[in-house]
Amino acid sequence: MTTHRRAAILSIGDELTLGQNLDTNSRWLADRLLSFGIVTIEHATVPDDLGAITHAFERLSSTADLVLSTGGLGPTDDDLTRQSLARLLSEELVQDAEALAALRAWYTFRYREMPATNLVQALRPTSATCLPNPHGTAPGLALTAPTGALVCALPGPPREMQPMFEDHVRPRLRPPPGLVRTRFLRTVGLGESAIAERFAHHPSGNLMSRERNPLVGTTASGGIVTCRIRFESATPCNEDAVAHTLDDLERDIRSMLEPAVFATGDATLEQTIVELLTERRETCATAESCTGGMIAQRITSVPGASRAFLGGLVTYANEMKIAHLGVAEGVLAEHGAVSAPVALAMARGALSATGATHALAVTGIAGPDGGTPEKPVGTVWIALASRAAHGANAHARRFLFRGSRDAIREWSALAALAMLRLALVERDMALLGEVERQPPSPLPR
Amino acid sequence: MTTHRRAAILSIGDELTLGQNLDTNSRWLADRLLSFGIVTIEHATVPDDLGAITHAFERLSSTADLVLSTGGLGPTDDDLTRQSLARLLSEELVQDAEALAALRAWYTFRYREMPATNLVQALRPTSATCLPNPHGTAPGLALTAPTGALVCALPGPPREMQPMFEDHVRPRLRPPPGLVRTRFLRTVGLGESAIAERFAHHPSGNLMSRERNPLVGTTASGGIVTCRIRFESATPCNEDAVAHTLDDLERDIRSMLEPAVFATGDATLEQTIVELLTERRETCATAESCTGGMIAQRITSVPGASRAFLGGLVTYANEMKIAHLGVAEGVLAEHGAVSAPVALAMARGALSATGATHALAVTGIAGPDGGTPEKPVGTVWIALASRAAHGANAHARRFLFRGSRDAIREWSALAALAMLRLALVERDMALLGEVERQPPSPLPR
Repeated sequence: MTTHRRAAILSIGDELTLGQNLDTNSRWLADRLLSFGIVTIEHATVPDDLGAITHAFERLSSTADLVLSTGGLGPTDDDLTRQSLARLLSEELVQDAEALAALRAWYTFRYREMPATNLVQALRPTSATCLPNPHGTAPGLALTAPTGALVCALPGPPREMQPMFEDHVRPRLRPPPGLVRTRFLRTVGLGESAIAERFAHHPSGNLMSRERNPLVGTTASGGIVTCRIRFESATPCNEDAVAHTLDDLERDIRSMLEPAVFATGDATLEQTIVELLTERRETCATAESCTGGMIAQRITSVPGASRAFLGGLVTYANEMKIAHLGVAEGVLAEHGAVSAPVALAMARGALSATGATHALAVTGIAGPDGGTPEKPVGTVWIALASRAAHGANAHARRFLFRGSRDAIREWSALAALAMLRLALVERDMALLGEVERQPPSPLPR
Repeated sequence: MTTHRRAAILSIGDELTLGQNLDTNSRWLADRLLSFGIVTIEHATVPDDLGAITHAFERLSSTADLVLSTGGLGPTDDDLTRQSLARLLSEELVQDAEALAALRAWYTFRYREMPATNLVQALRPTSATCLPNPHGTAPGLALTAPTGALVCALPGPPREMQPMFEDHVRPRLRPPPGLVRTRFLRTVGLGESAIAERFAHHPSGNLMSRERNPLVGTTASGGIVTCRIRFESATPCNEDAVAHTLDDLERDIRSMLEPAVFATGDATLEQTIVELLTERRETCATAESCTGGMIAQRITSVPGASRAFLGGLVTYANEMKIAHLGVAEGVLAEHGAVSAPVALAMARGALSATGATHALAVTGIAGPDGGTPEKPVGTVWIALASRAAHGANAHARRFLFRGSRDAIREWSALAALAMLRLALVERDMALLGEVERQPPSPLPR
């Protein structure tokens, strides 16, 4: 049995080679493989062309021990992964009884007739195994290439591909001996370079030096910077000692970045907030203008959010701010909708309209139009109101975000959530000064 | 002079192969090339390894007429693109006087001493040309490979790479004399296989046959299926005739898929809705329970949405449905929050609370908990109320979505938007039967 040291990832589809869609699967797969100590040595993307796909499988299976492909498993004539793998193996395609039954069940469960075109999705090369897909109609395929490399073909949609990887590819992996352990610390409020500067001044020398083991790295995405700690050993070693080393390093990093670290693993900021609120038996509500429901949507994406979230108001028109949040018409006229008094009135209004313990309010200019010299596009006021012994505490902060309409909205939602989290852990808001100045580059899309 | 018909794109960097960073350059470049009629036949990503990079340049320059690389032009020891290209050409690296002067000027302009490490950035293979980079320190390189292919090496950061492409690569392109024309038709409500079945029954034979020109393909993403029509000719041909052929085919496809086609190009469903409302001088509002603000967020993502969207209420708690939407307590008690009467009351309530012309309401069980045998997880009621001559018209539809909490929420938002669009184009809702039963597979993330 070959050990899987070197992997190659193949993405299949005209929409990818021609630049219509962005491939996110390859990055995800490479990242997962690395966590098991398997190094990806190439990504390749080829069009829906039988010759090109077959050639890529041949080439990659001769340089890597493991080849993972995504895409080309759909039911239509431009889905050619199955045929390419049959060619690679010089085998026929045969009907897989179990896959066919699963496919029929998929449609039955959805009260639908299975279209005849979907029949091809139950085909596999003779020596291949079908990988079940509970999230879609395309089963995956696992097979051994003539070179001995393990080849797994996964569907393109990430929602189907990711669980199939975890359930059916992962158990087939034979990672090299030794030990790889990874931890993630999730932070908000510090940019990647600010974190790198702090790490550079660690008493033991630069924590991010490439010679270290554990190796420390950072990745920014959606305004969240994740610090990655990875220990890697090519030979077997004492797990407890490694865990101890990682604990020490994690503690160091936490204290260097306080209070920016909000979670370990892959928890989101909104998950952290729902957990904090649920623990404290408190609730929150939102009043959103420029973010248009994005904050409420993020909080309610968390399972069990109903215990912590009462509701929100998307007050895009001024009339809605007046009618539903009780913002005074005079305040709107005097200060304009994008102002501290209006943000504060919105937050207080949401508190009384919903009966929540905390209310976030956002009002800003997301652009592309609507900016003025005094209030340029990207000006956003965020307010947080919280019930206190006597009445409510409320404060507002001004942010100036740079970037597209999408980026400004995403940054606004992030800053609002960060503000609520800091209040819940009773930390002051100084950290948010850095959210404010963070470049909008690492945001998605 | 070789014509550039077929391009290959090479991305260079450990952070890409290992899955730390997402490569967005390849998609961008392929999309730009296609607009000039140059078809990208492969993307490849290799690590910071001299052998791997050199081999990739050799391989790609023997199959493509044009190779564009990104990355590996920085000043550090793991930046190896220059050396690889010198190997490809079997040439020495020489200092480029102009590039060196530009590099010094870059630092002078920033009142900084140029670090000695940056000197390597002014190196080029003897026969190569340096491409100026006003946005960073890494000049690009243009050269002719031994195979005759044009090779351009560009820096990795998109804000440096993109202007360098426009200013220095684009003028070097020699697009084929023939013609490539692409059209996109965006649909909602039909699955990929349903569309494929309709295409298979075209009077002239299967529209998706790979032998056809124009070639027809489909891609599903976020519940939207995009039909791609691509005409390709290797020789010059009559543009008007091609446009005419594409018009005919587009008309055919539209009539085969009616009323599912909502836009051409890359317009989103929410853009279409904002446009339709703006044209008609009408407005909409939302009342969301299980989607938690997602519909409002999607509509407000469209620039200029304020002309068409007044606001929304995220009524997660029943108390909010009662207080802000006027849903009667008795109706909630008798039918439960997830029911037609409550969805209808929410939609009518949002209509009067906001003064909008149309209001969408969603109430459902997104899970993972909260399902019952009568109302399993995935049960969602969506209502649309619209102002009419006398009072308001309202109707509600029940959907049963399968999948994760995220998937159910995304499908609900999509179905609601599709419902509003169908109402605005005055089509009946029969199509939604298919949204209802569509598998949750093509959803994002």
